[in-house]
Amino acid sequence: MRAADVGDTVMGRLVAEYGAPRAVEAIRTRALPPEFVAREAEQERPQDLTSRLNAWYARLAAADPVADVEAGLRSGARLIIPGDPEWPTQLDQLGRSRPLGLWAHGNADLRFSCLQSVAVVGARAATAYGAHLAAEFGVGLSESGWTVVSGGAFGVDGAAHRGALAAGAPTVVVLACGVDVCYPTAHEPLFTAIREKGVVVSECPPGVHPTRARFLIRNRLIAALSRGTVVVEAALRSGALNTATHALALNRHLGAVPGPVTSAMSAGCHKLLRERKAVCITTPEDMIDLVGVIGDDLAPQLRAPVVARDKLNEPTKRVLDAVPSRGGAGPASIAVAAGVALDKTLSALGGLAAAGYIERTPDGWRLRRQPSAYRKASESVALDPPPTPEPDPTDAPPPP
Amino acid sequence: MRAADVGDTVMGRLVAEYGAPRAVEAIRTRALPPEFVAREAEQERPQDLTSRLNAWYARLAAADPVADVEAGLRSGARLIIPGDPEWPTQLDQLGRSRPLGLWAHGNADLRFSCLQSVAVVGARAATAYGAHLAAEFGVGLSESGWTVVSGGAFGVDGAAHRGALAAGAPTVVVLACGVDVCYPTAHEPLFTAIREKGVVVSECPPGVHPTRARFLIRNRLIAALSRGTVVVEAALRSGALNTATHALALNRHLGAVPGPVTSAMSAGCHKLLRERKAVCITTPEDMIDLVGVIGDDLAPQLRAPVVARDKLNEPTKRVLDAVPSRGGAGPASIAVAAGVALDKTLSALGGLAAAGYIERTPDGWRLRRQPSAYRKASESVALDPPPTPEPDPTDAPPPP
Repeated sequence: MRAADVGDTVMGRLVAEYGAPRAVEAIRTRALPPEFVAREAEQERPQDLTSRLNAWYARLAAADPVADVEAGLRSGARLIIPGDPEWPTQLDQLGRSRPLGLWAHGNADLRFSCLQSVAVVGARAATAYGAHLAAEFGVGLSESGWTVVSGGAFGVDGAAHRGALAAGAPTVVVLACGVDVCYPTAHEPLFTAIREKGVVVSECPPGVHPTRARFLIRNRLIAALSRGTVVVEAALRSGALNTATHALALNRHLGAVPGPVTSAMSAGCHKLLRERKAVCITTPEDMIDLVGVIGDDLAPQLRAPVVARDKLNEPTKRVLDAVPSRGGAGPASIAVAAGVALDKTLSALGGLAAAGYIERTPDGWRLRRQPSAYRKASESVALDPPPTPEPDPTDAPPPP
Repeated sequence: MRAADVGDTVMGRLVAEYGAPRAVEAIRTRALPPEFVAREAEQERPQDLTSRLNAWYARLAAADPVADVEAGLRSGARLIIPGDPEWPTQLDQLGRSRPLGLWAHGNADLRFSCLQSVAVVGARAATAYGAHLAAEFGVGLSESGWTVVSGGAFGVDGAAHRGALAAGAPTVVVLACGVDVCYPTAHEPLFTAIREKGVVVSECPPGVHPTRARFLIRNRLIAALSRGTVVVEAALRSGALNTATHALALNRHLGAVPGPVTSAMSAGCHKLLRERKAVCITTPEDMIDLVGVIGDDLAPQLRAPVVARDKLNEPTKRVLDAVPSRGGAGPASIAVAAGVALDKTLSALGGLAAAGYIERTPDGWRLRRQPSAYRKASESVALDPPPTPEPDPTDAPPPP
């Protein structure tokens, strides 16, 4: 892990063929198997291969693996290697760019957390729109049992992680530096919170600082760990599009959230949609529909509540206003908050549930998550005239 | 045209098989060909067919065709029927719901105008975002030689027509009422302006008022007249989605403009994108790329100018600020507006054109339309770091 930089596929092949101990020994003694060197010399210009191998020799000579392991353990992290129970086997699909090992720091089990996970990625310079949606996706995916994987950066990444934390769920940060290095520094409190319930991982040894190249290489891990990637906001030049490319190359699902076409921060998402590389995603449910098991996680058809809010009677409206949108509340506390008698509250709750406004959860009643939670304007839809009958467009429009 | 309501496919079959004069005579004498009635009785419940035919008899008896023609001509309109030089033959693809005739009012030739046309449709209750984009599409399509077809309604329709007028181009309004009826009334000045350069058409006889059913039937004409339809904004229940359905059924191209997922007025567009019924359209160029001749009308790849605006020297910046975004201006007037000497202006214009900021048109210099005209934030893109090299995502990320 010290001898080559992350994602070095030549090192990947050496370790895959000869095993890590023999590889280390061969590099230390500068005695790589001649047939290996001969084969690699066909893949890359001899001078490039020579400088690559010389870099390995020099780096390994300068490395202090015992110190690395001690530093990692001292920071509270653990080292996971292929074959370990916590190794996420989906990373094996990376082939020769599979990481040699992963440092993990946090209370969650990495493999278990990523079994049902979605990568939520996007611009660091997210707009308020993008940050809002990233948080909503973090909450929504987590509440449905999906782990949010992201890069811990400013903007979309951070908002998605925070949404997951707000839902009380584990979330996975994949760093482009050592797990004991905090980048960005201002995210120290966020990473501390994530280590409580989730896990921070990196293929970089302790103490390694992020570089532009490491960010790009890191992105393949975000794509590979999760069942699908959703790009929340991305300019035409964005690291998130790099993650999207990895997701497609790994046959992972790819979604993109549209935004105003007047916003440069959505232009990358629109490009993915236009080129039909990504599916149009407007809610967390859309994404779960994409990555979930067919028939099991279908997104509900978008439908407005069947009774317009304006048609509700006054106590029922007050009860509806008292039902929380997150978590849940019991009838008694809703009755108090609404200022409506308990028996009337109970009957109003039943009616509101039947009309699709609220739902019962283990924590009590709450507003139905979909579509109201993501479409502020859903009430205006409910007040529209009844659905327009769509005439058979081919040959037989309905007579008046 | 008086005996049956618009889009009556039974009437369509009668006229197709026996010709309009024999059809009229048969209805007038209540002596429809028995084999025709027998065949239609297999298509529809006998009581429904009977009431349909009785309606024909009663309506024709009440009709005054000479008065209709006189009223139409008096209003300034003309009647176009299949086979006329001005008949848009693409309507023949409507089969038996092809209109029996079209009333047209305006100076443009209907057939010629629609040869290269795009339908721009969307919500009456458009947001400022939707109305802005509809106008931009109206301008952009028109400036590229594409006629805008729409329904003349409030919101997206009206904005699209106004954009076309602003570009000095003809535009086609398809009404759901007689061409001598102004609906919506407030659009009288708009329709007057359109009749100057474009044309207002309807399959309804003069004096007929719009009904909900006529709007839906009318939508098939908007889809059929144009080579493709772009939905700018549409709620989940929207007449524009009905037009989209017609466009797909007629094998026309369909595009949808994305918007904020938090906006109910874009939910219909996102549904079309999500179901992969529509192509993601962010600029008029995208739409022309979709409906145009392959290789001839390709949308330019989105690219920011190659020189960042901040790196331009002071006089060049002033020259750039003096170049108009619409129309065009000559070097002399730009020099005066910029307060820069003519020789320096000429040299700055050459440099700005090479850098992709401006372009030369028959009317003089103007800002390059794309992407700057539609992406207000394009300058910030230009100031971004140089494009990120995308590593081969499969197996060989670049070493640092």
